[in-house]
Amino acid sequence: MFAQRIERLTSSLVRDILAAASRPGMISFAGGLPASEALFQPGASDFAALNCAQYGQTEGEPQLRELIAQRARALGIACTAGQVLILNGSQQGIDLVSKLFVEEGTPLVVEAPAYLAALQSFKLFGAPLRPVTVDAQQGPVWTELADALPGARLCYLTPTFQNPSGYCYTDAERTTTAELLDAADVPLFEDDPYRALSYDGPAPAPIVGRLHKARWVYQSSFSKTLAPGLRLGYLIAHPDLITPLTRLKQAADLHSNRFSQHLVANLLASNRIDPHVAAALPLYQKRRAAMDAALRTHLADKATWQLPQGGLFFWLKLNQPTDTYALMQQALEAGVAVMPGDAFYQGVAPGSYLRLNFSHANETDIATGVARLAALLG
Amino acid sequence: MFAQRIERLTSSLVRDILAAASRPGMISFAGGLPASEALFQPGASDFAALNCAQYGQTEGEPQLRELIAQRARALGIACTAGQVLILNGSQQGIDLVSKLFVEEGTPLVVEAPAYLAALQSFKLFGAPLRPVTVDAQQGPVWTELADALPGARLCYLTPTFQNPSGYCYTDAERTTTAELLDAADVPLFEDDPYRALSYDGPAPAPIVGRLHKARWVYQSSFSKTLAPGLRLGYLIAHPDLITPLTRLKQAADLHSNRFSQHLVANLLASNRIDPHVAAALPLYQKRRAAMDAALRTHLADKATWQLPQGGLFFWLKLNQPTDTYALMQQALEAGVAVMPGDAFYQGVAPGSYLRLNFSHANETDIATGVARLAALLG
Repeated sequence: MFAQRIERLTSSLVRDILAAASRPGMISFAGGLPASEALFQPGASDFAALNCAQYGQTEGEPQLRELIAQRARALGIACTAGQVLILNGSQQGIDLVSKLFVEEGTPLVVEAPAYLAALQSFKLFGAPLRPVTVDAQQGPVWTELADALPGARLCYLTPTFQNPSGYCYTDAERTTTAELLDAADVPLFEDDPYRALSYDGPAPAPIVGRLHKARWVYQSSFSKTLAPGLRLGYLIAHPDLITPLTRLKQAADLHSNRFSQHLVANLLASNRIDPHVAAALPLYQKRRAAMDAALRTHLADKATWQLPQGGLFFWLKLNQPTDTYALMQQALEAGVAVMPGDAFYQGVAPGSYLRLNFSHANETDIATGVARLAALLG
Repeated sequence: MFAQRIERLTSSLVRDILAAASRPGMISFAGGLPASEALFQPGASDFAALNCAQYGQTEGEPQLRELIAQRARALGIACTAGQVLILNGSQQGIDLVSKLFVEEGTPLVVEAPAYLAALQSFKLFGAPLRPVTVDAQQGPVWTELADALPGARLCYLTPTFQNPSGYCYTDAERTTTAELLDAADVPLFEDDPYRALSYDGPAPAPIVGRLHKARWVYQSSFSKTLAPGLRLGYLIAHPDLITPLTRLKQAADLHSNRFSQHLVANLLASNRIDPHVAAALPLYQKRRAAMDAALRTHLADKATWQLPQGGLFFWLKLNQPTDTYALMQQALEAGVAVMPGDAFYQGVAPGSYLRLNFSHANETDIATGVARLAALLG
């Protein structure tokens, strides 16, 4: 009745947990929601001058593409506006890159752990996945990466404040990664949505700008810096890849919302985004500190974690082997929603992890929620 | 290097012609653009009260889904809001339905001619297509449809003011089509973007509401009634199909733009869409009359056509066998852009056709453009 790929279309755990997490009284650490208080709320004047009712270009609005290319060049990515494709949020980039590269039997290199919805998309299109450990203590495991790359169709990395682990590749690790990719000539898909949410100084420049031979796609989003409801992200691609990606975008939905595109272009042109993010960072830092303090109070003898330097998540390693799916269910009943770590692994997780979002709940709820969780861990 | 499907990712003729059609001095009958003068231009107050910065639901905003379901029920489609999925324009519905049903080797029934970008999506996902003639004089050819349906995975129809032919199935033809689909138990994908642009009285009710056994997806769009730049469409699906389609939407881009969704929900709730369309119809009727008059003046002895009862296109059958791709190139050089009919056929076209959009150019340009075209036909 359906295409075979539908057998691989798993129910999204994120979606199911988020549905439970919206129940009254629930404290949610489960989603990946930015702080609502920190979102950009467009005023009437932000939309007033917009005249974008007609069909637009598949690639996106020219001014927006130019402004994005300028910012990317400042991060060391040699590119022109012609290499920029505007997306409905960067989840769409995962769909388009999957269509471009992924089919049954073509191995893909992914991090372990990795962003759940990317793993789901790659599996939907039929790729066998080759996970490479990226560890909070030791970073990427080079022997695993060197073994995984030869013959792979694509390598998907989130090197900057990764979802879920929060890990940020050092400058030297980025250069080594680029060298390995060049040597194996495997295209890199670098997903970089959290770069602006950096709490202890700027992150090192992206990996794609360090490549000399391997092809690449870089993508980011305005969901974490402005507002997810705008559904606006972008990708920048190696010249060999931008034309087929643009055709895939056209087949997917013709083009992205022009009102959002003009709004964001205007904010970029008037230099309003960076100050908006800078003004929001103290709130994120306070919530990060609140979760760290609550974890120290309640879970210091039951788990270990690193203070995330950026992004939206704590990645908690439980000292005792634990069925994290069962723990998640118990936590929901106790009024706190968490994400089981196993969901972020293709295959067996190397330990018992939980992902805790610290950006959405306020400081009081963070303390209460961590206490509820700790009570379950006896 | 790429997935095999990329070999089937043809350059979009529409996109290439539209690029040429935007050259200065060009009169374009090539695209499918609604009249710019008839589009809804949101004012500041339409956006002012919107508070939709945070992530939203994959399915879409609840109020919008409810209002869409109400309108669908008035068209004879028995459905609830739970069967409605909000899309980034109805092109996205073609992508999602392709992912749900289409894979290599599974035949699909399509009309001949049919919407170009739907054929491209189905081919991208690898389906062999079974074309069924739908003729301006005789309607759907029942023997062809009855032969094509058994064993097909899906049947894609645009029965109301079809792109490109403009054909509108009669009430009796819709009932017969439903009976054949039920008998073969083949799911129907009914694409209905032009229904509101009806110039000579309302079109008969959709086919999906007449099915008793076969599953179905119905889709439409606010691009033709309000503004394409909003990128807002929707599908309504049989209960068996809505869950996998929603998961595919989540994997594709999480959810649609919330600002557009709230704007359209507010317009529907305050009953502003139908009056807006009613006020726009006289402009479309005038342009349709202008093109009909220009065709009578210049092409009466070189082509035949029906006056379209709705939609955006004249479908011109040339009396002499003509290479319509070559004619298109000559026309571009002469300053008029048209779509070659062959592009809308899977396989060999049964004659030499041109698709002429009458909604975008003004009346003066319509007369000039048709004269330019006629000069090329000797």
